[in-house]
Amino acid sequence: MAEYILARENGRVIPKEDKNFGISNRAKAAIREYGKDAVVNSTIGTLNDDSGDLIVLESVHKVFQTLGPKDYAEYAPIGGTPAFKEAAKKAAFKNNVPEGFIEVVATPGGTGSLRNAISNYTIYGDKVLTTDWHWAPYKTIASEIGRKIEVFELFNAERKFNIDAFKASVNDILAQQESIVVILNTPAHNPTGYSLTPTDWDNVIAALTESAQTGKAIALVVDVAYMDFAGDEDEYRQFIPKLSTLPENVLPIIAYSGSKTFTLYGTRCGAMICIAKTQAIADEFKRVCEFSSRGSWSNNAKVGQVILEKIFDDEELLASVSKERAYYRDMLLARGRAFSEEAAKVGLEIVPFDAGFFVSVPCDNPEEVAAKLEKENVFLVPLAKGLRISVASIPEAACRKLPAMIKAAL
Amino acid sequence: MAEYILARENGRVIPKEDKNFGISNRAKAAIREYGKDAVVNSTIGTLNDDSGDLIVLESVHKVFQTLGPKDYAEYAPIGGTPAFKEAAKKAAFKNNVPEGFIEVVATPGGTGSLRNAISNYTIYGDKVLTTDWHWAPYKTIASEIGRKIEVFELFNAERKFNIDAFKASVNDILAQQESIVVILNTPAHNPTGYSLTPTDWDNVIAALTESAQTGKAIALVVDVAYMDFAGDEDEYRQFIPKLSTLPENVLPIIAYSGSKTFTLYGTRCGAMICIAKTQAIADEFKRVCEFSSRGSWSNNAKVGQVILEKIFDDEELLASVSKERAYYRDMLLARGRAFSEEAAKVGLEIVPFDAGFFVSVPCDNPEEVAAKLEKENVFLVPLAKGLRISVASIPEAACRKLPAMIKAAL
Repeated sequence: MAEYILARENGRVIPKEDKNFGISNRAKAAIREYGKDAVVNSTIGTLNDDSGDLIVLESVHKVFQTLGPKDYAEYAPIGGTPAFKEAAKKAAFKNNVPEGFIEVVATPGGTGSLRNAISNYTIYGDKVLTTDWHWAPYKTIASEIGRKIEVFELFNAERKFNIDAFKASVNDILAQQESIVVILNTPAHNPTGYSLTPTDWDNVIAALTESAQTGKAIALVVDVAYMDFAGDEDEYRQFIPKLSTLPENVLPIIAYSGSKTFTLYGTRCGAMICIAKTQAIADEFKRVCEFSSRGSWSNNAKVGQVILEKIFDDEELLASVSKERAYYRDMLLARGRAFSEEAAKVGLEIVPFDAGFFVSVPCDNPEEVAAKLEKENVFLVPLAKGLRISVASIPEAACRKLPAMIKAAL
Repeated sequence: MAEYILARENGRVIPKEDKNFGISNRAKAAIREYGKDAVVNSTIGTLNDDSGDLIVLESVHKVFQTLGPKDYAEYAPIGGTPAFKEAAKKAAFKNNVPEGFIEVVATPGGTGSLRNAISNYTIYGDKVLTTDWHWAPYKTIASEIGRKIEVFELFNAERKFNIDAFKASVNDILAQQESIVVILNTPAHNPTGYSLTPTDWDNVIAALTESAQTGKAIALVVDVAYMDFAGDEDEYRQFIPKLSTLPENVLPIIAYSGSKTFTLYGTRCGAMICIAKTQAIADEFKRVCEFSSRGSWSNNAKVGQVILEKIFDDEELLASVSKERAYYRDMLLARGRAFSEEAAKVGLEIVPFDAGFFVSVPCDNPEEVAAKLEKENVFLVPLAKGLRISVASIPEAACRKLPAMIKAAL
């Protein structure tokens, strides 16, 4: 690690090079040398077709082609356009509208929502709680504003959601600080593909209800980036109305992203949506989060907002977008099933998997195993506790082939 | 000011309502009631035509219409696409390329550049220096990450750039902390329209060279948002090569924005560009600023990046964009001249003005004067030290009419 010359470290651990960037570059080089068919590039976080090309919904692109100058060139209001806010609520809730006071603040993807939630519901130096298996940028987001990520074990010995660890960690942190932000990435968790079950959710809500008796503020951020690629869209939203049963000092915040659902990754179209028990708490949410936006990126890019407005303003269009997404979701679900079936056949242990873009394989020496696989032109991302395979970016045939190769490399 | 319920104040002063939003809403209501011609809405920060409509360069919109799905839907790399980085350098420097090691990090507008510069070249609790007349969000940006804005008087008694105040403030802050970020908004400063002269720049560089003898790090952020609306584009970039003469521990950072230059406001297309004395300092800049981006908004929206790529990849297109902008710049400059001529005629004192979107009038009771003018259907923004008039958003005729009305209201 180089020493700092003019910049200040500020408690962050800033790598010399982005690890994933290096892997991804080596994968691209291998494709150039050996051809597409000889390489499995399972590092990518977008849904790609069987040739490895990014899927963009045609119905969404048709909307893009109708846009006029003001649709992208004009500043959006800091918190988002009014019609976008309505669209974001519909997109996030569908038929599972929660009771409570709802406010929406547009953000650049899920990242912006997480950043604003941490900035407003913790203080400098605080701990932020998430699962041991987690999307690595959570740590970057927290440390960029002087907070630390603390983790609890996602699974217990029975390979079930570890509610005891969750409860203990929440209470432990709340004993040390005046408020807490808890991040749960579900359904179709990145990187394991796990989805909290209805019982898991009941347990989480009971635990937080108990912890709330301290009177301290608890912000429960649910990162739903992959929600529309888990299975039936309404079934996987059944947890949302449950959030309304939380006590007043627990604030559920949905970190909503249009990246995957509408294939709008590069437009940075997201929103943070609160489900508050009182109007005052919802107003406060809007006010403080808009302030954070103003002070970080100002207004959010408009083009994605207008695309969502237009989709939700036209039932027929919405139906065609949903239908197109369902087609690709089925493709993705088949890939995930292929991987887990083959893993079972060859006796490869995987982390409890439900659905989504990623599958994880636990192992003790991830870097080493990943390097070994690279020699066979298989590229995947080594994490702290194992390997992350993106089934979103490789064809079903590769999903069938990989488990045996990984098993052999272990 | 409401007390905080669940959110944490974190040293910020978060207003109950955005002041400008209120004024702007009252202006819109007045237009609905009395008609466009009876209302002067001089609150808007975008370049509008004489009917008050946003100007979007037609040549830019033609590029937008050629975009394919990947041009907006794909994630851009965290630091920006390689071709965008080249385009941003060309756009920022034109024929005034500085010597040194240049690195570019894409950011959501100037806001993102300022945020990242402050986050990386100061520590929590530090002071950030800018001018007493300044764009209000500087304070929001600094306070959102626990820094404070300190100001020096932009003008001395002779109505010239106050180099003595500048020097004293830099040295005073450097005596208290290990590094400093200095923000200068020039040319065509928001909100006064002042542009640092070549002599001002020589003085600033001499002062910082002296302050640098402390060995402490100085990040000099030049916010050039309005650079292409000041006058001749190369003449107003002559300060850039001068920045190369600064010593190693002074890092010039250009906060570049495509918002005004390419009428891409809502795409959040900007970049921070460093002019470093060593490769190591430039590498560090890229590394720490990309980390900050990753932890704040992740990758930056792609659509604006691709539009700039395409414009700078086609000389003919670039020429037509420049020509179109020159036409609107002349329109804007004429408005500014009209305002200052009339001000001189009626004896209205204005803050030293050169060019750009805004003119400022100093006064002791800005809120009161603004309220008085609202009764005559004139809407402008009261600042701490006076009134800000956006000549960018009103026709030349209104610019001629306003000075006498303001004079009368004072």
